Amino acid sequence: MPAELKYKKIRIRVFAPATVANVGSGFDIFGFALNTPGDELLLQVTTRPGVKISRITGEDGQLPRAAEKNTAGGSIMAMLQDLGADFGVQMELYKKMPIGSGLGSSAASAVASVFALNSILKKPFGREELLTFAIEGEKIASGASVHLDNIAACLYGGFVLVRSRKPPDIISIPTPQDLYCTVIHPRIEIKTSMSRQMLRNQIPLETAITQWGNVGGMITALFKKDYNLLSRSLKDVVAEPVRSILIPHFQELNDLAIRNGALGCSIAGSGPSVFALSAGKSTAKKIGLALQKFLSGQQIENDLYISAINQAGPKIIKLEKK
Amino acid sequence: MPAELKYKKIRIRVFAPATVANVGSGFDIFGFALNTPGDELLLQVTTRPGVKISRITGEDGQLPRAAEKNTAGGSIMAMLQDLGADFGVQMELYKKMPIGSGLGSSAASAVASVFALNSILKKPFGREELLTFAIEGEKIASGASVHLDNIAACLYGGFVLVRSRKPPDIISIPTPQDLYCTVIHPRIEIKTSMSRQMLRNQIPLETAITQWGNVGGMITALFKKDYNLLSRSLKDVVAEPVRSILIPHFQELNDLAIRNGALGCSIAGSGPSVFALSAGKSTAKKIGLALQKFLSGQQIENDLYISAINQAGPKIIKLEKK
Repeated sequence: MPAELKYKKIRIRVFAPATVANVGSGFDIFGFALNTPGDELLLQVTTRPGVKISRITGEDGQLPRAAEKNTAGGSIMAMLQDLGADFGVQMELYKKMPIGSGLGSSAASAVASVFALNSILKKPFGREELLTFAIEGEKIASGASVHLDNIAACLYGGFVLVRSRKPPDIISIPTPQDLYCTVIHPRIEIKTSMSRQMLRNQIPLETAITQWGNVGGMITALFKKDYNLLSRSLKDVVAEPVRSILIPHFQELNDLAIRNGALGCSIAGSGPSVFALSAGKSTAKKIGLALQKFLSGQQIENDLYISAINQAGPKIIKLEKK
Repeated sequence: MPAELKYKKIRIRVFAPATVANVGSGFDIFGFALNTPGDELLLQVTTRPGVKISRITGEDGQLPRAAEKNTAGGSIMAMLQDLGADFGVQMELYKKMPIGSGLGSSAASAVASVFALNSILKKPFGREELLTFAIEGEKIASGASVHLDNIAACLYGGFVLVRSRKPPDIISIPTPQDLYCTVIHPRIEIKTSMSRQMLRNQIPLETAITQWGNVGGMITALFKKDYNLLSRSLKDVVAEPVRSILIPHFQELNDLAIRNGALGCSIAGSGPSVFALSAGKSTAKKIGLALQKFLSGQQIENDLYISAINQAGPKIIKLEKK
């Protein structure tokens, strides 16, 4: 029986998590995965070569159906090409997280697809290789200058340090078990490209020193489980001061999170989602309810997520053999 | 018996270590202490108020004898003032390390003096307070913009992260036991102020991101004892490219260190000393001999130091009760 026919008998449903990138001081180098929300993807191997996206739900028709224009499709195409595959793939993408929210929506779809096919094929590829395929998919959404913090956090799970982008050098950082994240997503749109344009190409050396002092503090805090240090180190002095202008009531949300017990609060990725870290689920919930109440009072529709750090990354929901 | 008379019967001799600041990617925020070289200081309390430096050796008359112009003197003056002391101090400073070498010479003298008096007085001050007194002393050598990496590493021992300068936030980072440092000091003079002027006030954001990725990598490498990661993360893309111009044959020294097994190599502080890190004493020695042979072949006088990371910081050599 040819390989592709054996694989054809398998249908897999996977989950890939939303992610928080930057994480305060770690602009472009820190990211972590959430347990919720995330994307689900159904994938099966087909005898016919090529990639077919037969269905996408949960995104109001915003995402392209053509595989080569879709991050999940582009990632799988890169993987099939590397395999020299004489078979194809058919998938259904269930978006279960907001697009353009700053929570790594395109990264989740890219990771879901390569993780799914790799699982069906009995893992011919390691994480580093899956990362390169997912990067190819992300390029469709982000252009040539892909940032790895969302993809890496989604694929590796846990908290990651992107020490280097070229070549990719992803380091897993341990996190305390009771570290929780609150994410509030105001339903307004900010294009990543616009948010990036707001940043200056040059920054003062003194500002940079403050930022890398905080980066060192964040990593140390996670290794030492030192929440006080984490709280002091989370502050982003580079991107947040300019990007927060695009997020309505950012300062109020920040103050409210801190007043309700957050260790720190900043922008998730390029926004508009705002995240807060806290010790323990009940504090995370309390913060979330306060933020939600405030935004709703301002007539801003929003989504609220409470999650521990997702240590597993993508996972198989269901594996069906026909 | 008045307190000062009781203290007057004690004479203390202390050692304070040389330090390597910046440590590659950690510009202005990383530092570690060496076992050798360092300063020795003899101190005793006097009935007469004020600070008297009765002797300085080992510096060819380069250092000011007037207490208020000397880093050891200035630090002690700040401490006595805080105490509201009605007594004074007399000291002898034995410089046992090169001045202007980039190894924190002034920091060692400042730390030696405050550590010595604090020990005699049975430790009324904690490290944070001693740090503020030593900063006052360092201001004499460095002007208003004192950098804490040398002082903090000298006073705390081990490897330190200066997360913040104002207010000082010093974090101790564990280091692997077999991590060794080779320091080669070419006997040429570089003024810290000149070396600092070479740096631009603004740096490209992309360069800053590379640097803080490496900062995160360095801290992670020390916690995980991952020498491979340490090696990848040591690279300084901000200060070294410009400052190394002032150090003759820097690139050759760097290449030679790596060829002889160094994990990484960079400028100690603002130079001209060059340091290399390696796993194990024998590799550190091998590197040292290669660097020394090369510089000597270039007719450049030099000093060579091989040391593990000094975990203790300053120490009492002798405590005499008369």
